[in-house]
Amino acid sequence: MLGGMHDHDGPLARLRRGHEELVLGLLRRHGPLSRGQLGQRAGLSRTTLSDIVAELVASGAVVASAKDPGPRRRGRPVELLTLNPQAGQAIGIDFARRAVHVAAANVAHEVIGSASAAHAADLPWPDRIDLADSLVGTLAGGALRLSALGTVGAIGVGVVGPVGHLTSAPPGDAQGREELLAKRFGGPVLLDNNTRLAALAESTWGAAAGRRNVLYLRLSHGVGGGLVVGGALHRGTDGLSGELGHITVDPAGARCECGGTGCLETVASIGAVLRAYRAAGGRAADIAELHSAADAGDRTAHDVLHTVGGHVGAVLAAVCNAVGPGVIVIGGEVADRGTALLTAVEQALDARVLPIARDRVTLRRAELGDVGGALGGIALVLHESPLLAGYPARPDRTDSGPADPDPQEDA
Amino acid sequence: MLGGMHDHDGPLARLRRGHEELVLGLLRRHGPLSRGQLGQRAGLSRTTLSDIVAELVASGAVVASAKDPGPRRRGRPVELLTLNPQAGQAIGIDFARRAVHVAAANVAHEVIGSASAAHAADLPWPDRIDLADSLVGTLAGGALRLSALGTVGAIGVGVVGPVGHLTSAPPGDAQGREELLAKRFGGPVLLDNNTRLAALAESTWGAAAGRRNVLYLRLSHGVGGGLVVGGALHRGTDGLSGELGHITVDPAGARCECGGTGCLETVASIGAVLRAYRAAGGRAADIAELHSAADAGDRTAHDVLHTVGGHVGAVLAAVCNAVGPGVIVIGGEVADRGTALLTAVEQALDARVLPIARDRVTLRRAELGDVGGALGGIALVLHESPLLAGYPARPDRTDSGPADPDPQEDA
Repeated sequence: MLGGMHDHDGPLARLRRGHEELVLGLLRRHGPLSRGQLGQRAGLSRTTLSDIVAELVASGAVVASAKDPGPRRRGRPVELLTLNPQAGQAIGIDFARRAVHVAAANVAHEVIGSASAAHAADLPWPDRIDLADSLVGTLAGGALRLSALGTVGAIGVGVVGPVGHLTSAPPGDAQGREELLAKRFGGPVLLDNNTRLAALAESTWGAAAGRRNVLYLRLSHGVGGGLVVGGALHRGTDGLSGELGHITVDPAGARCECGGTGCLETVASIGAVLRAYRAAGGRAADIAELHSAADAGDRTAHDVLHTVGGHVGAVLAAVCNAVGPGVIVIGGEVADRGTALLTAVEQALDARVLPIARDRVTLRRAELGDVGGALGGIALVLHESPLLAGYPARPDRTDSGPADPDPQEDA
Repeated sequence: MLGGMHDHDGPLARLRRGHEELVLGLLRRHGPLSRGQLGQRAGLSRTTLSDIVAELVASGAVVASAKDPGPRRRGRPVELLTLNPQAGQAIGIDFARRAVHVAAANVAHEVIGSASAAHAADLPWPDRIDLADSLVGTLAGGALRLSALGTVGAIGVGVVGPVGHLTSAPPGDAQGREELLAKRFGGPVLLDNNTRLAALAESTWGAAAGRRNVLYLRLSHGVGGGLVVGGALHRGTDGLSGELGHITVDPAGARCECGGTGCLETVASIGAVLRAYRAAGGRAADIAELHSAADAGDRTAHDVLHTVGGHVGAVLAAVCNAVGPGVIVIGGEVADRGTALLTAVEQALDARVLPIARDRVTLRRAELGDVGGALGGIALVLHESPLLAGYPARPDRTDSGPADPDPQEDA
């Protein structure tokens, strides 16, 4: 692509996208504007503005509408430019192991609905995408369709496993599904790990809404996490961040599926917690029953959850000292009920987080549940899609001083 | 400031700074340009461009020079705009506990020299700043002076302890020294923790040059670290990131100065390592002697360093799994010699880093030594100063796809 006619990554293309973002951001903030008003606010030359507006109108992102100039003024009606309310919807999809979750947002960045459907673990990708499409069709009174989002919107997609520019999945899996989606959708597809997307969603609409430095941990069938750093999702090299489930908590512990030993996941996943409870003589068909037993005063259930909480707290404290989040969000079936586990986590944090930092970090339960990953897909689009992002895409560094102070962290 | 005449943080000021950065970036990339060329490339209106250029010329950042139109053309010489080579030097200063280190860079972002001087731990701030000023005077053939950098350059300053927008230091300390510096300097002062700045320097010019996701650990009289995330220094809430020295390695361990128990610093600082060696019957006046003993085959010295390396590796592996760095850089007197410690660190990383991530992270020794913090001050200015930054300040997110893939991580 370098040096070609369609140089999408060169300085000129970048500049042009910057201008498009500027114009879209102004229309988003100010509502309908005339060309004159837009030119004044954007500080762009007439020629540049005219080019940019023509492109945006052609793409369907912006519509030009006539406005009656009013009784006192003569001549042609004033042309007003507005964001196209039919365009630019963001769709989030979470392709979990055994379910598809979808959510949608309108051009005003408001979530307008979500839906979920369970499926067999071995459902092929084309069928999963069909399922996602039909779920999307149930949102917004049937007005939305993946294939009808057009050239302006984007979809953010969560999948299981690490996602980076060098994905470890074989071609035909990760690349394959992305291509399938892009083909069906006809627009850009942003892909990320679904647990990381849940972290982004919690920091956008959930337990850490508006916070810029967030540590998220999910204790479910697997154990994983995500970091929001300076308001943006942190990915790490090759997408290998947020692997909190594979931090060692017991070097002499059980073998982990990852190939390591004594990982947090070997003691804090749903399966591990149930095994520990049963090994101690408890009986529970699932994690909900274990929580109910603990709530009902079952000492064994309480102690098992307390021990797990201690390990979880040790891991969170270590990462907290390294990264400095303002909020720690903990979710997943192991953590979303009862107090035994969370109390133990709090105790471990109190003992292990750097004392001067202790009152600057808050532990909260996740709020978005199953649909967090799909909502995170939307958040990803709103944060990172070239056309839906504000201008600048995130708060200007020169505006906020240091890169990621958190104006709400002391609220 | 909000709504006032001099709104430095509002959308208009931000837009204006964006335009200034755009113009400075174009002059940096293309060299001297006429107003016409500049206007064409910037896509700004004539009025906006004229305002911005006038401001930059008045500030001394840009100079206008006449160029002979050549024999075939008549009329006035073409006015060319260039960056002022006398302006915009970046200075980095590291105010360590018992020494001042300085470094300087020219407008081309090249480091042109560094210097250091030791002093008593209780030297008052005005005297430390005098010392820094005279050290700066020794660089660049005596052409540089803190007070003569003028309105365009900026200095990046490293200090001991956490630095955030809510610093824990009492007024008269952190704020006081920043004011003293700003007054002396007459320009913007960017302040950060000196260990974090060393991390930034290592990722700019040192062991992790050009890498976008870097984990840095320094084992010295204290133990601290820093994270470079997506190419930028990560600060965390209230500047409390990088506290790797206070991650618990032994819950039943020694009391730490921070108020915690069994922190990495209690086993891996110079003092802790020497105490462990002496407790095991070894004799060494300082850490250099201990390293020499280990090099000479002293089993006790080797074992002490090996044990410390195991703790260090456990902490690095935990943070690595959470954050996903491409490079881990380890520095400070405890780690800058010998192999016993680093071998143990490698072993712990091999055992504890998520298996699929192991070959994607490299362990390296720090390269910049004592002057790393001062170089980091320069890097901070180049990364974050409004006037010295490129346009955009960091690689456009929409340009590089996901926020922080690391194009060199597999190099």
